[in-house]
Amino acid sequence: MDAAATDLEIAFRLWRESINQRLSGYMAERLDCPPRLRESMAYSLLAGGKRLRPLLAMVACEACGGDPFAALPAGCALEMVHTYSLIHDDLPAMDDDDFRRGRPTNHKVFGESLAILAGDALLTLAFEVLARDVQPGNVAAACCADLASAAGECGMVAGQVVDLEAEQTGVKDVAHLEGIHRRKTGRLLMSGLTMGGRIAGADAPTLRRLEEYGQGVGLAFQIADDLLDVSGDPEKMGKGVQKDAGLGKLTYPGLLGVDESRRRLWGLLDEAKQQAASFGTQGAKLAALADFVGKRDH
Amino acid sequence: MDAAATDLEIAFRLWRESINQRLSGYMAERLDCPPRLRESMAYSLLAGGKRLRPLLAMVACEACGGDPFAALPAGCALEMVHTYSLIHDDLPAMDDDDFRRGRPTNHKVFGESLAILAGDALLTLAFEVLARDVQPGNVAAACCADLASAAGECGMVAGQVVDLEAEQTGVKDVAHLEGIHRRKTGRLLMSGLTMGGRIAGADAPTLRRLEEYGQGVGLAFQIADDLLDVSGDPEKMGKGVQKDAGLGKLTYPGLLGVDESRRRLWGLLDEAKQQAASFGTQGAKLAALADFVGKRDH
Repeated sequence: MDAAATDLEIAFRLWRESINQRLSGYMAERLDCPPRLRESMAYSLLAGGKRLRPLLAMVACEACGGDPFAALPAGCALEMVHTYSLIHDDLPAMDDDDFRRGRPTNHKVFGESLAILAGDALLTLAFEVLARDVQPGNVAAACCADLASAAGECGMVAGQVVDLEAEQTGVKDVAHLEGIHRRKTGRLLMSGLTMGGRIAGADAPTLRRLEEYGQGVGLAFQIADDLLDVSGDPEKMGKGVQKDAGLGKLTYPGLLGVDESRRRLWGLLDEAKQQAASFGTQGAKLAALADFVGKRDH
Repeated sequence: MDAAATDLEIAFRLWRESINQRLSGYMAERLDCPPRLRESMAYSLLAGGKRLRPLLAMVACEACGGDPFAALPAGCALEMVHTYSLIHDDLPAMDDDDFRRGRPTNHKVFGESLAILAGDALLTLAFEVLARDVQPGNVAAACCADLASAAGECGMVAGQVVDLEAEQTGVKDVAHLEGIHRRKTGRLLMSGLTMGGRIAGADAPTLRRLEEYGQGVGLAFQIADDLLDVSGDPEKMGKGVQKDAGLGKLTYPGLLGVDESRRRLWGLLDEAKQQAASFGTQGAKLAALADFVGKRDH
């Protein structure tokens, strides 16, 4: 590993600490929140994880010449939306999962009703944090619209609906699979980049370059996830590997084979890194995040 | 009924039509939404109802000298949040209700997973509508923060958590009951007034007067609801009356008796109407809405 890569990894580690601290702070300041509800929200929100979505917002802000820490509230809002989606997706009526990140899922610990409400509260809090802590107000409003559009009935929620439908009908082909992932995970990742750019005051062409970077990285993220499920180490992942294959869910390796999936992953990451290069030295962390997505082992 | 009252009732009927049209429009424009998800969202959102929350936003906007129709997006956002809360509250893991407004509840028609997701999508869409359609951007951001704070883990969601807890532990006294209602319904009603005032450009003392009006009306609304459950006509209500009493839920009539509950209701409405009078002729509809809350029969 070269020195520059090490510096970037140290930077990401420090940023991740700031994200975790800010998330803890948002939980601690909810003074009028019923204690059991706060426990349930914090159980899932503060469970660790890669914090990829907040990092994307901060990296995009820096790439566009802004202070990356100005994007912390947007990053935390993204993480709240991501966490609520995991809590609701794990429910018995949805994917019915008992474990997540090596721990019992929220409803296994707190019961179904509190898990539903903790998810609802995290989704709502995301918009409170964005609307209140992003400055100035017109940028905050634009970020709220970005996040809602990415997370809502044409974005992440649509992805979950289509994914549940595909369990009944089967996935037809790669285009179908990509359509599901674009909505289920891609659009939320992309909104992190857009919000980060907006907070830095980026113009429309710059936001479009971030989107092009995000499209590649979002898809790469999903291919890496599917590859991990075929070859990953269950101890590192905290859930049973080959679970998707066992449920008959179609995946990139299932549709294209492992080798072709890897080639596609690397191709997407190469393109993303070219986009990152167009941001000059300010975009170094965009390239590093693309590498991180390719190398992830949990 | 005097002529002025009739004029106001006609105005409310026209406003309600505008609200319903705008809500239908918001559903129709969701082009990339999976059809079954849109059906599920529309089933509950377009099921009719009093549209009290949107009316509150419009009336507050007019009382503060604004164009009431400028508050339509905020009103629609409120109705989306209200509808999502009904869908989730009716779920088997929550209040487990089979009927709402005389029709099968969302999960009885569309299944639990789609009902959860339709609720999630309506909550998300509320913030998209607010952030995108309220102008200017800084007012939109302030409205997003108002709505999130009222609906979230210290507001409406907290109220539902405490209400579910009270089913186990029992309601201690009137203060306990009022605390539940303030969070479960009062704060959302109040946020409608605040948003309407903000959109009219109201200053802080004016927003405080709206809040005082809203505190009284919110509590009156709940007492009227409880009284209705004791004495209401099941055909008009579309659900079994005395359901709350049957479940052992404590209510105002249960704690104070019917007569004392009625006296309290009228006292609150008198105070609200005095607050309304402080807005002059522009506040006529605030007074009319207070009367409407007192007289509601469904």
